[in-house]
Amino acid sequence: MSFDPAQSSPAIAARVQRVAPFLAMDVLARAAEKERRGDSVVHMEVGQPGAPAPLAVREAAKAAIDTGRIGYTEALGLAALRARIARHYRDAYGVEVGPERIAVTTGSSAGFVLAFLAMFEPGDRVAITAPGYPAYRNIFEALGVEVVTIPLEKADGYVMTARAVRAAHAHKPLKGVLAMSPANPSGTMIGRAGLADLGAACREAGIWFVSDEIYHGLTYDAPAQTALAVDPDAVIVNSFSKYYCMTGWRIGWLVLPPALVRPVEVLAQSLYISAPYISQVAAIAAFEATDELEVIKAGYARNREILLEALPRIGITDMHPVDGAFYVYADIARFTNDSLDFCKRMLDEAGIAATPGLDFDPAEGAHHMRLSFAGTEEDCREGMRRLGAWLG
Amino acid sequence: MSFDPAQSSPAIAARVQRVAPFLAMDVLARAAEKERRGDSVVHMEVGQPGAPAPLAVREAAKAAIDTGRIGYTEALGLAALRARIARHYRDAYGVEVGPERIAVTTGSSAGFVLAFLAMFEPGDRVAITAPGYPAYRNIFEALGVEVVTIPLEKADGYVMTARAVRAAHAHKPLKGVLAMSPANPSGTMIGRAGLADLGAACREAGIWFVSDEIYHGLTYDAPAQTALAVDPDAVIVNSFSKYYCMTGWRIGWLVLPPALVRPVEVLAQSLYISAPYISQVAAIAAFEATDELEVIKAGYARNREILLEALPRIGITDMHPVDGAFYVYADIARFTNDSLDFCKRMLDEAGIAATPGLDFDPAEGAHHMRLSFAGTEEDCREGMRRLGAWLG
Repeated sequence: MSFDPAQSSPAIAARVQRVAPFLAMDVLARAAEKERRGDSVVHMEVGQPGAPAPLAVREAAKAAIDTGRIGYTEALGLAALRARIARHYRDAYGVEVGPERIAVTTGSSAGFVLAFLAMFEPGDRVAITAPGYPAYRNIFEALGVEVVTIPLEKADGYVMTARAVRAAHAHKPLKGVLAMSPANPSGTMIGRAGLADLGAACREAGIWFVSDEIYHGLTYDAPAQTALAVDPDAVIVNSFSKYYCMTGWRIGWLVLPPALVRPVEVLAQSLYISAPYISQVAAIAAFEATDELEVIKAGYARNREILLEALPRIGITDMHPVDGAFYVYADIARFTNDSLDFCKRMLDEAGIAATPGLDFDPAEGAHHMRLSFAGTEEDCREGMRRLGAWLG
Repeated sequence: MSFDPAQSSPAIAARVQRVAPFLAMDVLARAAEKERRGDSVVHMEVGQPGAPAPLAVREAAKAAIDTGRIGYTEALGLAALRARIARHYRDAYGVEVGPERIAVTTGSSAGFVLAFLAMFEPGDRVAITAPGYPAYRNIFEALGVEVVTIPLEKADGYVMTARAVRAAHAHKPLKGVLAMSPANPSGTMIGRAGLADLGAACREAGIWFVSDEIYHGLTYDAPAQTALAVDPDAVIVNSFSKYYCMTGWRIGWLVLPPALVRPVEVLAQSLYISAPYISQVAAIAAFEATDELEVIKAGYARNREILLEALPRIGITDMHPVDGAFYVYADIARFTNDSLDFCKRMLDEAGIAATPGLDFDPAEGAHHMRLSFAGTEEDCREGMRRLGAWLG
């Protein structure tokens, strides 16, 4: 019973070669090692809030645990949570959505997998942006869906446009478009007119329009618009991870056009059974925690000011507009053409962890990096001090 | 902005047509309706423990919530949980497994999706049994993997055999085999020699051997054997849902051959990010709750005796051996050739909810049903009383 995996294993699926690991994980591992040696690291690489979930959420979770039974729920989620999410669309956006169109998911991650499986066949072409959230590309690769990359242009304010979608579809037909506003890593937002244009372009083409709204609530000027307000056919992906500070709870939702509800339900029964029960109960309380969450957001706003004030003085002048989310996506071509190497050296020499742009954009990301300001004000100040000293 | 989904929606993915809904859900919905009318229903359809998770698990979860930060973990799970699961293999089976081979997953559901994506290409053929857990077939359909059904034979004690695997592979090559012991819905178990033979057949053929061990711990005579003890190349799927009474917590694990660890990690980063944090911390405590869990298991054993004593008297004499899990899978050909209709009538007329065999076996399931004895002793006694009166 000798065991040599290199010799004895059956073949690994070819898709694994096409799914990229996160380079940020290399940085994270290197940062952890540095900290184990006793060195200090300022964490500006993390894509999650530093604050805990609101107290009301944590109390609701503990109360749910005290009731004892933590069982499966219906595949589309607890009726009370679906109803509360539906109400949120009326309260926050003035849009009427029936609870029967809400699917509670195990984070937006499950939302993507379920919606994509219901909408797209292997070989279908779906447009995303570069830079963009790296998991999009990887989930599509895993499912055999062809990714069509639309590079974001400065002239467009670094957002996806209906013009770019129409051009891509004319070149070779698409089956869907996936837009994000506010965007990761860009921080840019698509306005009401832009969303309506994207919806119209998709309707003309007879293709799916998916709007990732996970950073809604985290905006620093105008509030974010939901695609639902201008396009009832849009598929909405959202989550309690960002504004509601519930990353590790793994809880999110979809708003689906009626035709997709039953397909997603049937897929969810087999692929997920249901989202975590405790998180479902706790998430209901998240909508009542606005006061606490707005205080946390005010902290991001202060951190954002610190970065936007400091970075140009340090010599980092070319950034995407930081209209929402909690990231600065900066052009560092003045300093490097290898953002992974740059981030490693910045960590080793200056004690700042950041995410190389290559995670978000295989081409232009080589001279970009993402700095997160989701941490503390002290981290942001110290990070800028260290960065200035290192670059200067 | 008129909206008619039938006209305006782009095409739904064809796979949705191949993924079967759970018929049990029809029964569940009908049972809930009946209860809303004030009628009493004995629930023998549920595939989950009636008992809450052990107290130590619930206390650990609340303590984790009190620490505040509930964040993402590494994609393969918290190091402490991976180490504790690895130790479980030494304690329970005398098998040495390094923690680096453990992947913590969001229930066994995520374990299947991740392992299947890492092992199988669209068009690959994988053997499962009929009857069997319905999600296997549906996940494979969703991923474009071809399902090869091996019918369980009375002469084999209703378990998958190496002989059947070799015959299927000789007919047309397989890429993998998925076996379950103790099995759902059968309750049957594969012994050490049977597992070794299955592993050998897969090794000869150069194909993957997947062993679903989710019902380990729930056995009524000999303990279950892990495939790892006889085949270090086996891919093990397990979960805290059944023996540990943690269904709604959505937490499970894989034991992977070294060649699959990195592929599963990279896929998990994008498809799941990580398993729920609270459930990961709580699961560590589950291994210390053996006293409490053995009391719950003793309850199943009593329930099992009640069913095995009552059913033959009622006229249900042909059952798969109930060696493990908490199900009786009974042949009801004497009464029906339409198990869905039978289960609906049994619910309406006798107030007993059970799962039609068609969920587990599209062919022979038409004259089988599954009765769960995971509920209370009172439920089991009352269920047998009602069933006897109804059939008699």
